[in-house]
Amino acid sequence: MPERAGEALVRVRVAGVCNTDLEIARGYAGFEGTLGHEFVGSVESAPGAPELVGRRVVGEINAGCGRCQLCRAGDARHCPERTVLGIKGRDGAFAEYLQLPPTNLLPVPDEVTDERAVFTEPLAAACGVLERVPVELETRVAVVGDGKLGLLCAQVLKTLTGAGVTLVGRHESKLNIARERGVRAVKADEVPASFERAFDVAVEASGSPEGFETARRLLRPRGTLVLKSTYHGTLELNAAPVVVDEISVVGSRCGRFQPALELLRRGAVDVDSLAAEEFPLAEGVRAVERAAEPGVLKVLLRM
Amino acid sequence: MPERAGEALVRVRVAGVCNTDLEIARGYAGFEGTLGHEFVGSVESAPGAPELVGRRVVGEINAGCGRCQLCRAGDARHCPERTVLGIKGRDGAFAEYLQLPPTNLLPVPDEVTDERAVFTEPLAAACGVLERVPVELETRVAVVGDGKLGLLCAQVLKTLTGAGVTLVGRHESKLNIARERGVRAVKADEVPASFERAFDVAVEASGSPEGFETARRLLRPRGTLVLKSTYHGTLELNAAPVVVDEISVVGSRCGRFQPALELLRRGAVDVDSLAAEEFPLAEGVRAVERAAEPGVLKVLLRM
Repeated sequence: MPERAGEALVRVRVAGVCNTDLEIARGYAGFEGTLGHEFVGSVESAPGAPELVGRRVVGEINAGCGRCQLCRAGDARHCPERTVLGIKGRDGAFAEYLQLPPTNLLPVPDEVTDERAVFTEPLAAACGVLERVPVELETRVAVVGDGKLGLLCAQVLKTLTGAGVTLVGRHESKLNIARERGVRAVKADEVPASFERAFDVAVEASGSPEGFETARRLLRPRGTLVLKSTYHGTLELNAAPVVVDEISVVGSRCGRFQPALELLRRGAVDVDSLAAEEFPLAEGVRAVERAAEPGVLKVLLRM
Repeated sequence: MPERAGEALVRVRVAGVCNTDLEIARGYAGFEGTLGHEFVGSVESAPGAPELVGRRVVGEINAGCGRCQLCRAGDARHCPERTVLGIKGRDGAFAEYLQLPPTNLLPVPDEVTDERAVFTEPLAAACGVLERVPVELETRVAVVGDGKLGLLCAQVLKTLTGAGVTLVGRHESKLNIARERGVRAVKADEVPASFERAFDVAVEASGSPEGFETARRLLRPRGTLVLKSTYHGTLELNAAPVVVDEISVVGSRCGRFQPALELLRRGAVDVDSLAAEEFPLAEGVRAVERAAEPGVLKVLLRM
């Protein structure tokens, strides 16, 4: 794709592979271009924002038209003409350089290493759950799926709200990561009967129909099921219980970066345990293949 | 089913056939018993509530255990041990007599005829949308499906909130019923492109996957899709746009009777146009068959 006038040029330092990248590689969203939307980089040039040059930054991935009502209100995430880094109409971060509007870039505090800063985007997505459903101290929260996103959601919801959070997953080693952060964690095939209809909010972060069904069964009547994963294709929804129990199924996509950076600066969320392996950019294909293997946590690309 | 001690005995005067009855007849919810949950009747006996005897009544269809937290808060609609008239564990209204707890019964004002009072239950269900999603004067509301429920939802939402309501349906004659009540009505195959992503709330009252897809396309990002119909079986949900556009899909089932009765008393909602045909109880099977024919509005049974 051509160089974008007026945009910052960022040299990528580290990028992360997300499940959405794997779905895109399988044809989701019809995107053809350079993948990658999780990164930390160094600003080489930034028209109109000289204070950014030389800084280490992360970048919000939605770039809006700047003119519509949403953009003028400072939120490009639902701009109908938006491009999205490595997802829609804009080359992504699995490259030496990327471009984004300077307003999308946020300097990374010195105390946050590259290996942690690269988690800003998925951590922001986890924080974004709270934009879609109120969670308070008394709210009973379940998170289904012990992959990267599930582990981030469980930690974030517990840390930011103080609510009791229960993670349901399939891998003892991953459940232990959550347990070490004070999250109750239960294996999916050992969920006690007393958990059924016992939660106010259930976050579906497994991306599987079984995960959706588990989340639904955990919810009390009039509870809220947050759809947090990227789904490619159709989900066979058993609609009758959604109506009978008056469940709300709430989609959640991107979050804001600033609160996520602040969580990383404070060391309030453990992302170190989520890093699985690192590959050089030249081995990008192998990195994506590795990330697609079952049970593998975050694969990083170093430029 | 056996006589229920402590419950009122109601002689049914008129009952209505609902799409849910047709779904139950096809196997939905596994109910075996007398169908029917829309009725107006006369109280023959009412233990502990002598003031009801001889009164014309309608009845809330959920009967709770009376002991759980929900029941104690005065709302049996989600009591886990509830029975539901003609739907779950309790014989229904397509009979000469039915039983309900006296607390479920509401006297019908004299000015509301039997033929109108029998619409209290579906009208309450339409009012119930407002328990699940806030609708204000400025809210842009679409209702998809021009059957009985869609026509009631469109009228109720307009009448109770003053919001602009657009009904999308397939039948010119039914759309005209809505138009006469000030609802904008559009044929499904003539929906202009400008309607896409233009509504804050879309009520899916068609019960069809196509209706769901239409409702979704009408919604703005972060809009709310109310699932109002009884679905039997699975709904093939295209989950990606629900996540990407951060849609809320909100189930809605039963509403409260009192506001619905009040709308009927005031003549604020046209139900007369929704009555299609009347059959005697002895021809109940024929009545249900007739109600199942495409495009037929409310079929009534007179006892």
